Amino acid sequence: MPTITDSYPAAPDSALPNRRSFLRKSALTALLAPVAVGALAACTAVEEEPARAAGSPPPPPPKSRREVADEMDRLHEAGVKAFPAKTAGKGNQLMAPVMDGRVKVYRVRASEIQWETEPGKKVTAWAYNDQVPGPMIRVREGDRVRVELENALLESTTIHFHGLEIPNDQDGVPFITQPPVKPGEKFTYEFTVTNSGSHMYHSHHNSAKQVGLGLLGAFVVEPRRPRAVERADVDYTMILNDGSHGYTLNGKGFPATEPIVAKLGQTVRIRFMNEGMMIHPMHLHGMHMTIIDKDGWAQPAPWKCDTINVAPGERWDAIVKCDKKGTWALHCHILPHAESQHGMFGMVTALVVG
Amino acid sequence: MPTITDSYPAAPDSALPNRRSFLRKSALTALLAPVAVGALAACTAVEEEPARAAGSPPPPPPKSRREVADEMDRLHEAGVKAFPAKTAGKGNQLMAPVMDGRVKVYRVRASEIQWETEPGKKVTAWAYNDQVPGPMIRVREGDRVRVELENALLESTTIHFHGLEIPNDQDGVPFITQPPVKPGEKFTYEFTVTNSGSHMYHSHHNSAKQVGLGLLGAFVVEPRRPRAVERADVDYTMILNDGSHGYTLNGKGFPATEPIVAKLGQTVRIRFMNEGMMIHPMHLHGMHMTIIDKDGWAQPAPWKCDTINVAPGERWDAIVKCDKKGTWALHCHILPHAESQHGMFGMVTALVVG
Amino acid sequence: MPTITDSYPAAPDSALPNRRSFLRKSALTALLAPVAVGALAACTAVEEEPARAAGSPPPPPPKSRREVADEMDRLHEAGVKAFPAKTAGKGNQLMAPVMDGRVKVYRVRASEIQWETEPGKKVTAWAYNDQVPGPMIRVREGDRVRVELENALLESTTIHFHGLEIPNDQDGVPFITQPPVKPGEKFTYEFTVTNSGSHMYHSHHNSAKQVGLGLLGAFVVEPRRPRAVERADVDYTMILNDGSHGYTLNGKGFPATEPIVAKLGQTVRIRFMNEGMMIHPMHLHGMHMTIIDKDGWAQPAPWKCDTINVAPGERWDAIVKCDKKGTWALHCHILPHAESQHGMFGMVTALVVG
Repeated sequence: MPTITDSYPAAPDSALPNRRSFLRKSALTALLAPVAVGALAACTAVEEEPARAAGSPPPPPPKSRREVADEMDRLHEAGVKAFPAKTAGKGNQLMAPVMDGRVKVYRVRASEIQWETEPGKKVTAWAYNDQVPGPMIRVREGDRVRVELENALLESTTIHFHGLEIPNDQDGVPFITQPPVKPGEKFTYEFTVTNSGSHMYHSHHNSAKQVGLGLLGAFVVEPRRPRAVERADVDYTMILNDGSHGYTLNGKGFPATEPIVAKLGQTVRIRFMNEGMMIHPMHLHGMHMTIIDKDGWAQPAPWKCDTINVAPGERWDAIVKCDKKGTWALHCHILPHAESQHGMFGMVTALVVG
Repeated sequence: MPTITDSYPAAPDSALPNRRSFLRKSALTALLAPVAVGALAACTAVEEEPARAAGSPPPPPPKSRREVADEMDRLHEAGVKAFPAKTAGKGNQLMAPVMDGRVKVYRVRASEIQWETEPGKKVTAWAYNDQVPGPMIRVREGDRVRVELENALLESTTIHFHGLEIPNDQDGVPFITQPPVKPGEKFTYEFTVTNSGSHMYHSHHNSAKQVGLGLLGAFVVEPRRPRAVERADVDYTMILNDGSHGYTLNGKGFPATEPIVAKLGQTVRIRFMNEGMMIHPMHLHGMHMTIIDKDGWAQPAPWKCDTINVAPGERWDAIVKCDKKGTWALHCHILPHAESQHGMFGMVTALVVG
Repeated sequence: MPTITDSYPAAPDSALPNRRSFLRKSALTALLAPVAVGALAACTAVEEEPARAAGSPPPPPPKSRREVADEMDRLHEAGVKAFPAKTAGKGNQLMAPVMDGRVKVYRVRASEIQWETEPGKKVTAWAYNDQVPGPMIRVREGDRVRVELENALLESTTIHFHGLEIPNDQDGVPFITQPPVKPGEKFTYEFTVTNSGSHMYHSHHNSAKQVGLGLLGAFVVEPRRPRAVERADVDYTMILNDGSHGYTLNGKGFPATEPIVAKLGQTVRIRFMNEGMMIHPMHLHGMHMTIIDKDGWAQPAPWKCDTINVAPGERWDAIVKCDKKGTWALHCHILPHAESQHGMFGMVTALVVG
């Protein structure tokens, strides 16, 4: 049986700024040439020392390989110990509608904000109601819904309800189904929701930029008659992204990602949604996932896996029967989206079964 | 209910050359570092102004943010209004066989041509019978087929019948099943087609280059006994590509892509085929797709989605029951394959239900 | 019927070093910007001539297009004729356990080695027991297993048993379930194997680097009661990779990859496992694959295809009924992972039905 030490020396504070700056560097590197990250990671920390200016004091003696290895471990530990790290702002919060008779009214304001993806890392975001992802809209099959969009951005936008089967004039494609909504203007969408499941809403104008900057959110539709297979104690929506904000789960990178928490014996439903530009094969440790829905539609028969490949625009719903205690890693298995020499980052969280 | 304006000011002609040159630029950018496109798109048009030569007249005053936003809208509108734009050449045209007794004979000539992927954008292509994709071969299960390849290129080539279960010596792999077909030479393939479904034919010699340049086509085999689930009023084959010709559907980029047209209540079958190097998760607006076949083989049970992830070499057959009027966008949901600040481009078309 | 020549002129020896250096170049290119490879491949060999130093003898006259084409054919032929090429080292060898009572004990030592991926191409690898992939661990459902890890590297490491449902403290995630195993130290994992199927073991510390360098292997669990559908005459495990070692199948690139050999009428099971950073849609020529398992779990119903898209972290089990004689190519259909102007390379092998 393994010997496990429960306490480790704390990482020195000095390690943290170093880690931060690496993360910024690595995010840029990832954008430019993601597949080269593995190769870069093969460089040792020693080789990353900056060039010394003429006349500056002599550098400290080079670190031994063991010192380098220990420093790497400390950075990894600091990340894990910080999880879940506090950051300003929380995306994907459930939005309560205002009722207009029997119509559920949601007010959505698009504007530019600063968004903290992990402690100390702020990025420019275009957000609905100051959240990345935008607030979750959650209704019931058959509901009448009105979404009032206010454009507080400096360019035009629209909303497309990705996955909802609604009339063409509510589809949000500029110059095909509506004019773009100019800066300072408003636009109202209204429709009856006829199909249930895990859907999304996002910009459909200049979308590579606008969705990349954060104009996206979950649109979950509860069925009138839930199937037995989809009943869950915990219902969790996880939006994957990989744009200019780095690799994120619900707008945050590890260690600022949110753990999913369940009790032993409980059932968790995870609604994976990809709003990025790359696939993300999400891997759960220790327990399997039973895939029940694709894009809000029931699969003919549920099927089991531990790694579900989620492509851009797709939604996959998974059920996990939490039959094993522990903190179980849940992460993208494209490893450069999840870990560097400076520790885990980006698309990493955990399912904590207590 | 939304207010929808049906007429918009026309885009000035001056906007179009600008758009064209951007598309060329962005195609190159996409090839070099596709994931950075989102980041690039975050630059404003203002920042894209070229450097001014010494002694040239003073530049016009910088545009206001609103002017930049309006210009972006005009470029988007121009693209949509041009759809479907006329270009020279049409790929994937059904080829009629010459009958030799009971053998269906197809003559296929590989040569270098110029190919217009969108209005004004010409690329060098290696093509079968001057088409990209090559002409569609469409036969019936059990047919005897002869394909006479003439190589009018300056390098050797072969044809592989991707997905067909034919004898090994007809498989088209140079130095394993046949010698390469030298420039100026001919080679004849002949076989009985034993499995039905959506297949492809393409070069299997120096294929990263030759298929990338256009030596590819659809090979559709109708079953002797069609299943009820596969009967459709409209049968459409869509070959996805992402090589040196840019992001294309059947050899054309938006707005020169071809809409799929159906009447309300009709059933459309879309045969997605990927001849590129990247996945393309194709997303249909407003209606779902029922996936019936993978690589020409029936799925155990049809299943529904709105986004079907098509990997290189794969074929997925989808049935759409057109129960909603309108022009429904159908596009790759890797957004930088479909839209830039200068409008929709590349892998975008529409299913028009009239 | 085609005329097939069975013998071709041998490639001159001089062609081989040229091919080698190209492969090295192309591997680097692939790492930096894989999608640009197609574009690069469009350059002719003529354009690849190096610049001539001043005062050196006049260059030979430029080659004709036909000479260039013939040279390309010779390089392709040389690769095919060399297959399967001999290289030092073989990965994925079945490891016999040492029995400690009823416990199967596996000793795994992580260290840095030189690894030959194709004739003459040596790379630095981090390996378990000097193999890339590490030795195959193959047990039976219900077995008690002990894995003794010795870390002979210069940085810390751990092992994660990817897909196995084992207690949390055996899960191998540093600082969550155990401390990292320091250089020179040992760590023992012990657990009862409760779920069968195709699984993996690999580093979970600094994993983008460590797995990329080779710290990975197959962990296959035979079920207590095999289903009829999974019985096979040949059981083959194929680990896909795309890191700093280039594009490999079981640690080797074509022509050093291993053919799968079967007799006519036999059934082959291929366990595809992806330990890389990219998808690899594996395409089999001439015969279809019946997909039976995903991540070690039975699919609700087997389904047929000729191209199976394997994402990082995924395992897909395929059954092939070998009903056609011949040498059938089996390769990644992202063509720049499989072929360049200098011949097939990387993720190419064959299923030989004799």
